[in-house]
Amino acid sequence: MSSLPVLSLGLCGFGTVGQGVWQHLEANRALLRARLGVELRVTRVAVRDARRKRDVRLPRGVLGTDPLAIARDPAVPVVCELMGGTGLAREVTLAALRLGKVVVSANKALICEHGSEILATARRHGGHFLFEASVAGGIPIIKALREGLVANRFPRIYGILNGTCNYILTRMKEQGAPYAEVLADAKRLGYAEADESLDVDGWDTAHKAAVLAWLAHGIWVRTDQMIVEGISRLTPADLRNAATLGFGIKLLAVITRDFRRDELCVRVHPTLLPAGDVIANVNGVFNAVSVTGDVVGTTLYSGRGAGRDATASAVISDLADAASLLRHGKGAYLPGEEPAASSRCRLAPPERIRSRYYVRLTVRDQPGVLARVASAMARHRVSIATVIQGPADRPRAASLVLTTHESDERAIGRTLRRLRALSAVLEDPVLLRIGDFGP
Amino acid sequence: MSSLPVLSLGLCGFGTVGQGVWQHLEANRALLRARLGVELRVTRVAVRDARRKRDVRLPRGVLGTDPLAIARDPAVPVVCELMGGTGLAREVTLAALRLGKVVVSANKALICEHGSEILATARRHGGHFLFEASVAGGIPIIKALREGLVANRFPRIYGILNGTCNYILTRMKEQGAPYAEVLADAKRLGYAEADESLDVDGWDTAHKAAVLAWLAHGIWVRTDQMIVEGISRLTPADLRNAATLGFGIKLLAVITRDFRRDELCVRVHPTLLPAGDVIANVNGVFNAVSVTGDVVGTTLYSGRGAGRDATASAVISDLADAASLLRHGKGAYLPGEEPAASSRCRLAPPERIRSRYYVRLTVRDQPGVLARVASAMARHRVSIATVIQGPADRPRAASLVLTTHESDERAIGRTLRRLRALSAVLEDPVLLRIGDFGP
Repeated sequence: MSSLPVLSLGLCGFGTVGQGVWQHLEANRALLRARLGVELRVTRVAVRDARRKRDVRLPRGVLGTDPLAIARDPAVPVVCELMGGTGLAREVTLAALRLGKVVVSANKALICEHGSEILATARRHGGHFLFEASVAGGIPIIKALREGLVANRFPRIYGILNGTCNYILTRMKEQGAPYAEVLADAKRLGYAEADESLDVDGWDTAHKAAVLAWLAHGIWVRTDQMIVEGISRLTPADLRNAATLGFGIKLLAVITRDFRRDELCVRVHPTLLPAGDVIANVNGVFNAVSVTGDVVGTTLYSGRGAGRDATASAVISDLADAASLLRHGKGAYLPGEEPAASSRCRLAPPERIRSRYYVRLTVRDQPGVLARVASAMARHRVSIATVIQGPADRPRAASLVLTTHESDERAIGRTLRRLRALSAVLEDPVLLRIGDFGP
Repeated sequence: MSSLPVLSLGLCGFGTVGQGVWQHLEANRALLRARLGVELRVTRVAVRDARRKRDVRLPRGVLGTDPLAIARDPAVPVVCELMGGTGLAREVTLAALRLGKVVVSANKALICEHGSEILATARRHGGHFLFEASVAGGIPIIKALREGLVANRFPRIYGILNGTCNYILTRMKEQGAPYAEVLADAKRLGYAEADESLDVDGWDTAHKAAVLAWLAHGIWVRTDQMIVEGISRLTPADLRNAATLGFGIKLLAVITRDFRRDELCVRVHPTLLPAGDVIANVNGVFNAVSVTGDVVGTTLYSGRGAGRDATASAVISDLADAASLLRHGKGAYLPGEEPAASSRCRLAPPERIRSRYYVRLTVRDQPGVLARVASAMARHRVSIATVIQGPADRPRAASLVLTTHESDERAIGRTLRRLRALSAVLEDPVLLRIGDFGP
């Protein structure tokens, strides 16, 4: 029936995403053949436990338990690493790249920890490492940065990269529900892991931010070099206060580069965005990324950031690129595979990371407290823009919400240390950044 | 200084976009060399009048007046057609493709009228035709459809594809200014052409819709096969009424495909979008496209849809792809270059193009008119959802704004004919569609 060339694929890992890839390759098989001029055929799958029940029934001879055997099989030129983790996944990836294969990965933790080694191995042996599914699920943001916007330098990239946090913040805002209750729901619905820390404390977002920063600037920034703050201390009152002030709150990754000083800053924190900012209106499990290029201006990308199908869509687009690469022999060029490493570019020091701030304090409900707070801020030249005072969640206490004019991370850090030391301040202050990024 | 391979480019046309391409290639030269591993060098430029004053000074020997000579020059493997028009532009494009060159184009009118011939010529002679800049300016929407979302079928694509109309509607909404006044401003600012009809009557949007429909579905739909309606009859009152009902108004292209019946529908019309729809919040000269894929779900792309720099960004991304193609010899594969032609797919008949509607009537201010209008609608089973009655712009007249429950183009067309015939209806009714597309 067909004289099309066949491209053999090996899937290492056959969980949710792996089964999604299989099923969508089956369902849109005719379409993909017509579009690609190649038949994508999964010929080997490796799982940990071959006897486990699965939704998908594989043909005889496809299923095995040794991912390294797939990585080394000369009959399988494209290897999909969908196991997760950074141990065996790294070995499989390196083994396949050493043979000049194309490796497709959705594993952002692996890329963050070992990206440098992986890409160097790919270059040395003529292999290719594709990872569209590692950031923002089905949104083709990596292709946009590497290819569609190749003419641009990127002064600013910011966005929502974790659907779990966005789901939680959306429900807290829309229903006034407390954080713990919404988190429990998210776990029940399968949107959050049993150990939620990777999501809600911002680490997952930070991993993805590192990948985007590398693509845009050619530099690997470690998560311990970033500001990383999560959403677990936010309350429905913060979302209400923000709305009163004309803002929504989103957990954002923010990657800014000052080309004059050649300084880069990567940070992850809950951010007050003006209610009219398109990203402030991206709700539920959706992700969104705003990319400002020096040529194109500001562009925006949104879609489902996770889940079986969105991730499978991204993996299959990498498989299509792999097919294109392999039809022209190894060593074919993929734009942006080696971003221009700016060896002189440094991380911005705290005094040059500037922002307006939102500070929520739980204070003793007694006279003179506002004066003491205001004078602590004035001492570090942090200038107050608005004050909202209201009841706190505990007796004989008040909630004091301050927004500031533009200041910087060093000044606000020192201010918070001073505020914490005041006897009238009863709890650790909640600090949020105001992101007034404009169109 | 450099041992990088050089790729010679010829620019046919050196107006706003051509000069933008030149300047950005110059400004980001080091970056592009690092990212592409190739030096992109403009070696020939053709203009109509070589003596005209220009912002950009070209090196000696680059400027000429014969675009066909560039198309045929064996030393120029990549030709950028930036002249516009469909006469000489077509000749230049075909001449270059017949020599197996890569042609980069921003000319949506040319693609619409001669796309089939151009792509057939490219295939026959091993040339390539790239046209990222033809739709939605700097937004890499064509790459997203062809490559990033290659795993998907596309039940629905809709969006704002004309920045001039979006600028006019935004100002009408925000300032309550009348259409004619805002249009005059748009002309002064250079956002609208002297002959505005191509923009405001929807034809520019229709050309771009045809390109997107071809990419997604492999079928060329002519503009005379589409519903194409513009914005020139809208008033600030329509924007206020829409806001009262919870909607914004945008001029949209809407491309829907029913895969069960295998029917395609391409239409361009002002559309009421729920105020919470992200696209309803895309303002000014920005474009935005929502793409729903059967695998990925709904994704969204926005950015500047026109202008020197945004267009140059898209042209340069095509030049980068051209470099990648040419490093691997002619005939290299570009995903999606031949969308799967669905020979069985037909255009949907009017009775299956379903929507809710907004109808504004200027009627005699006398008793019984609403009853007559309502009975005209009932006769075609168009069911009224809401009624807003208010003063009209002329004496002894009232404005009657009706929204309907879901109906279809055949029924609403017959209803309008009947309404026009009523003596109490003083002006041609204004018909808008309600686009409740969901997330």
